[in-house]
Amino acid sequence: MSKIATKVLGLLTTKASSQNAFKRLLSTQPSKLVYSEYGDPIKVIQRANEDISDPKDGEVLIKMLAAPVNPADINTIQGKYPSKPPLPAVPGNEGVGKVEKVGGGVTDICVGDHVVPLTNNLGTWRTHLLLKKENVLKVPQKLGLVEAATLTVNPCTAFRMLRDFTSLKPGDTVMQNGANSACGQNVIQICRSWGIRTVNIVRERPNLDELKAFLTGLGATYILTEEELRTTNLFKSGEVDRPKLALNCVGGKNALECTRHLAPGAPMVTYGGMSREPLTVPTSALIFKDIQFRGFWMTRWSKDNANSVDRLEMFEELISLMTNNELQGPSHKMVNFDNYKEALMNTMTVQGMIGKKYILDFHS
Amino acid sequence: MSKIATKVLGLLTTKASSQNAFKRLLSTQPSKLVYSEYGDPIKVIQRANEDISDPKDGEVLIKMLAAPVNPADINTIQGKYPSKPPLPAVPGNEGVGKVEKVGGGVTDICVGDHVVPLTNNLGTWRTHLLLKKENVLKVPQKLGLVEAATLTVNPCTAFRMLRDFTSLKPGDTVMQNGANSACGQNVIQICRSWGIRTVNIVRERPNLDELKAFLTGLGATYILTEEELRTTNLFKSGEVDRPKLALNCVGGKNALECTRHLAPGAPMVTYGGMSREPLTVPTSALIFKDIQFRGFWMTRWSKDNANSVDRLEMFEELISLMTNNELQGPSHKMVNFDNYKEALMNTMTVQGMIGKKYILDFHS
Repeated sequence: MSKIATKVLGLLTTKASSQNAFKRLLSTQPSKLVYSEYGDPIKVIQRANEDISDPKDGEVLIKMLAAPVNPADINTIQGKYPSKPPLPAVPGNEGVGKVEKVGGGVTDICVGDHVVPLTNNLGTWRTHLLLKKENVLKVPQKLGLVEAATLTVNPCTAFRMLRDFTSLKPGDTVMQNGANSACGQNVIQICRSWGIRTVNIVRERPNLDELKAFLTGLGATYILTEEELRTTNLFKSGEVDRPKLALNCVGGKNALECTRHLAPGAPMVTYGGMSREPLTVPTSALIFKDIQFRGFWMTRWSKDNANSVDRLEMFEELISLMTNNELQGPSHKMVNFDNYKEALMNTMTVQGMIGKKYILDFHS
Repeated sequence: MSKIATKVLGLLTTKASSQNAFKRLLSTQPSKLVYSEYGDPIKVIQRANEDISDPKDGEVLIKMLAAPVNPADINTIQGKYPSKPPLPAVPGNEGVGKVEKVGGGVTDICVGDHVVPLTNNLGTWRTHLLLKKENVLKVPQKLGLVEAATLTVNPCTAFRMLRDFTSLKPGDTVMQNGANSACGQNVIQICRSWGIRTVNIVRERPNLDELKAFLTGLGATYILTEEELRTTNLFKSGEVDRPKLALNCVGGKNALECTRHLAPGAPMVTYGGMSREPLTVPTSALIFKDIQFRGFWMTRWSKDNANSVDRLEMFEELISLMTNNELQGPSHKMVNFDNYKEALMNTMTVQGMIGKKYILDFHS
């Protein structure tokens, strides 16, 4: 170290020792995205510097590594989402960080550990995050950065929908529409690892063969377009058992079409409505076929199960699948935090769950 | 007894003693309604004499007293109902009879007891019925004939829908449309006895005040027309808690309107579709409000619970409510068995569950 540098550091250490500014100057200036009114994300979001104090007892200071931009984040900023954080708010619900400092009494989390924040609406789109130790999940360093950053929404949604609405055993069949969605890809892979067959419905498109090859590679058992589903003989012929569960993120006519093929008593779980059309439910499907129409919202589940054993077991299994390469993260593009507007714009224009996931990258 | 009569009886006893014809001549000639093809009930149903043998071990011979004509019976004869009895078939799923003779080993049922047949599709529209003892339920003689004859469908449907889809406690609110249906009237009365408040939706009609007075008399807490429901302040004002359960026999727009008022997580149970319009389910009601759309079919429940403790407990409680005058049978008209066509015609023209129930009367 040069003499001048030593002198500057000495000065800084003396002047701001109580706020521990020295360490943070060696890292990056803490900053965050923030909005004070609901509206167009490009307009209402500002970048702002932040003062981060040292972690108190039971707290950990995290330097964020990556945080995805999810469609639900956009809707939240627009004020169109049912969970409205008090303003001003920092956007972002997912991410992964590295522990930079721990407070007193924190023994199971160490500096350098990779952790995933676990609470809703705390705002992950910032360089640094100060959290209670019970609100972070330590993840293995060998877990991919993308898998860790996107752990708490899509893979968990897929896992819970497959687990909580009916009892599935190896050889059973699950049907899903919007099968190429981020969640749908997780459904395919988790089902493969559990020995469950998947009938995957996608929309007709120019590069259909490419998509089919991709989903087959993930472990999809059958892939049908919405048109093919209408005339398929797959279930009538007995080639595959009628699905014991349907997962619906489309709504409208396709959901109705899926209902027709379900086994008696099967639940259809709705977690999205990409067609923007409601579900049409024939009375006979309810009464005589006993089809159950349910909904799932990961945000509510996480809130209701903040400290549940089920939640920890789920993370353990998902992380195990990911580190064994049985469950891969979504196709994505990393975008430097400085270019956050690019990530916002792209997430807004690719409409919902289709396409690449844009992930804020805090390496600078 | 005259000498001639004595001689005739002697003759009959000698000639047909193996078939026990003597006793039956003293009662009535056994006969039944029967159809050999699905179609218009008036055309396909014939009256036919029947040979009834003596009850074997474990069997009871029942002389029917009363059997209602339900809309589902009409649909079954038309071939429009999902449960299709093998042909030729005797119509009728409900009724009450008097035990005329018991076979060997039957100790808990005696001649003269009133019993309700318990199996589906056995055909109650006949003067005599030979059944295994486990397929009949002994009911108290003090139970009203109409209540006994109509015990196994509407009161049971109401009971199970209130019991099996959510946990209700005194003070909770249940909402139902088609509240003046036979089932709806049972819902009102059972809820009153359990301390549960009911919000009852009916259609606008000329004699609305009369209907409101009738339903209020049964114990209805609130009665609203479909129009009034659209603008009501009942729930927003906090006058009554949001319903924890909705029962739907209408479908279409009214069901959607009911959905809007439900408490988060509440189930809407569909058991009919009088509007002939499907249910429209907004995606947000499923995902963010966690409303559950389920169906109920008494026929399936009874089949699945043929010998369950739940079933016996339900009958016990319903019969207790009925004999305490807390639960009354439907408004009805008794029609002599000979005039069965009148009962069929009327049930077919009053469309579904609205109006009087027509009950075949086997007293002759």
